Amino acid sequence: MTHSTHEQHEQAAVIGQRAAEDRTPVTVIGLGPMGAALAEAYLNQGHPTTVWNRTPGKADELVARGARRADSVTGAVTASPLIVVCLKDYPAMYGVLEQAADGALAGRTLVNHSSGTPEQAREAVGWATGRGAEYLDGAIMVPVTAVGHPDAKILYSGPRAVFDTHRTALAAMGGTTYLGAEPELAVLYNTALLGLMYATLNGFLHSAALVGTAGVKAATFAELAVDWFLPSVVNPIIVAGVPDVDRGRYPGDLGNMEMNLTAIDHVLHTSAQQGIDTDHPALLKALAERAVAAGRGGENYMAMAEVFRGRRTGGAGGG
Amino acid sequence: MTHSTHEQHEQAAVIGQRAAEDRTPVTVIGLGPMGAALAEAYLNQGHPTTVWNRTPGKADELVARGARRADSVTGAVTASPLIVVCLKDYPAMYGVLEQAADGALAGRTLVNHSSGTPEQAREAVGWATGRGAEYLDGAIMVPVTAVGHPDAKILYSGPRAVFDTHRTALAAMGGTTYLGAEPELAVLYNTALLGLMYATLNGFLHSAALVGTAGVKAATFAELAVDWFLPSVVNPIIVAGVPDVDRGRYPGDLGNMEMNLTAIDHVLHTSAQQGIDTDHPALLKALAERAVAAGRGGENYMAMAEVFRGRRTGGAGGG
Repeated sequence: MTHSTHEQHEQAAVIGQRAAEDRTPVTVIGLGPMGAALAEAYLNQGHPTTVWNRTPGKADELVARGARRADSVTGAVTASPLIVVCLKDYPAMYGVLEQAADGALAGRTLVNHSSGTPEQAREAVGWATGRGAEYLDGAIMVPVTAVGHPDAKILYSGPRAVFDTHRTALAAMGGTTYLGAEPELAVLYNTALLGLMYATLNGFLHSAALVGTAGVKAATFAELAVDWFLPSVVNPIIVAGVPDVDRGRYPGDLGNMEMNLTAIDHVLHTSAQQGIDTDHPALLKALAERAVAAGRGGENYMAMAEVFRGRRTGGAGGG
Repeated sequence: MTHSTHEQHEQAAVIGQRAAEDRTPVTVIGLGPMGAALAEAYLNQGHPTTVWNRTPGKADELVARGARRADSVTGAVTASPLIVVCLKDYPAMYGVLEQAADGALAGRTLVNHSSGTPEQAREAVGWATGRGAEYLDGAIMVPVTAVGHPDAKILYSGPRAVFDTHRTALAAMGGTTYLGAEPELAVLYNTALLGLMYATLNGFLHSAALVGTAGVKAATFAELAVDWFLPSVVNPIIVAGVPDVDRGRYPGDLGNMEMNLTAIDHVLHTSAQQGIDTDHPALLKALAERAVAAGRGGENYMAMAEVFRGRRTGGAGGG
């Protein structure tokens, strides 16, 4: 919000591959750092932009840059056909939108960027439908500073036709990735990617601690681990293995779960011997043991998918 | 070992950036799939290659292609200044090499590719030194099929001068990466990278199971997770965070452990709600809770390095 007008024009020109004609009026509700960035992105693209926040002062900078401040939730909602919500969670969204007058939401599209669970996303569809509104769920996968750039990844789920209608306007906020009609897909992907992030960060940090016992710096380890091992070894293993996961068949002819259990036990043993945390490798081992106990000792490592899915093979414990 | 002579020449030409003059005689001990591939790589480069295996028949194909079969361990060891060992583990290496006549190893260099622990690697130096031999530890980070190609990653640790003396000959097996003088570095890196691999695979497979509850295929999830999220989000987070790990200071102004704990709790809660495994996210949560309990709630996520190192902050539990 410190850009000069000149800079704004430059930025708009960079983003401007999208149809320059779409200037759908947009309302942004919730002006925390992310909501404010979304509103700013719409202003930069020349959309008539209405903003609302529980604490009205948060709108001041945006108003100074051309946004219209709504004096009520009803005013905010009725100002635009497209309403972007960026609040803490679903209850916060209901808490605000239920202040709107009856019928205010009818015929409008709600795009919800609040965090929540798949169940909450599914419930929100019913809530919106009951008020005559269309509903899209959106997960913003980039930091505040990246919002408004075409390579900012934002994931959407909900009815395809609704997404298509607003795709050009949504592109003001960043790149639009449509996941599918099931409303929960955006929050589910968001949660899944977070889980992948923490698992990988923990894997890196535990491994850095392990080589750190010999005086190796994390930055030195990262040169091999991040620049080479993750992209050139691990990612190709995943890509090669996903067809097995989707078929539910895990041929073990090139290496099996028993062999991986031995290797994981080696990681655990070495961690203990070097005096670092053993909880992390102990879980890796316990999971591989669960796979073996479920009769998957002769299958390849991707069979861990079945452990996570909660399925077991016929002979070993049912389910 | 099914290449025609013509193909061998082509392959040698591709690899042949290395000094074509180095034809150091090499002995390869242990002819499992990996050892046989190492011997084949030396043959392809024109090195006089002697081979030995407990079961002599395993050498037949290599002998047919020009290798010399040693009739005893003493004969194998004394045939070459460079002895490459590829056996199951360190005890297996001692079991074979201790069959050699007294003094047979003196003045030679032993390159050990057997699996083991840092402690075993350090012990092996003493064992070799006691017999007048130099010792390098090597970790082969690629599958058998990639051996002999310049982009095959092989990690070495041991005295720099010994590595430099044999670097050109070692390059017959693949790309040579020197880690440092401490003998345990190769096995430690190998173990650490394995741990990183399993953590990342589990992270991916658990997340694929999570989106799978909404009918998303693992292959579809991989398009976002592997093609975009890991390289474009997670790897840069690691690279940006390693200086904190090396300084042991983790400023939390852009996000702290408490916030990450909330996000991880969300992953756990969603996993439970969707009916998939909760052990994996429960450990992520337990580790973040350990970090908070250790007084690191206001630090950024990379402070997990300290949990793994086993260190705690002053006020919270000592040590």
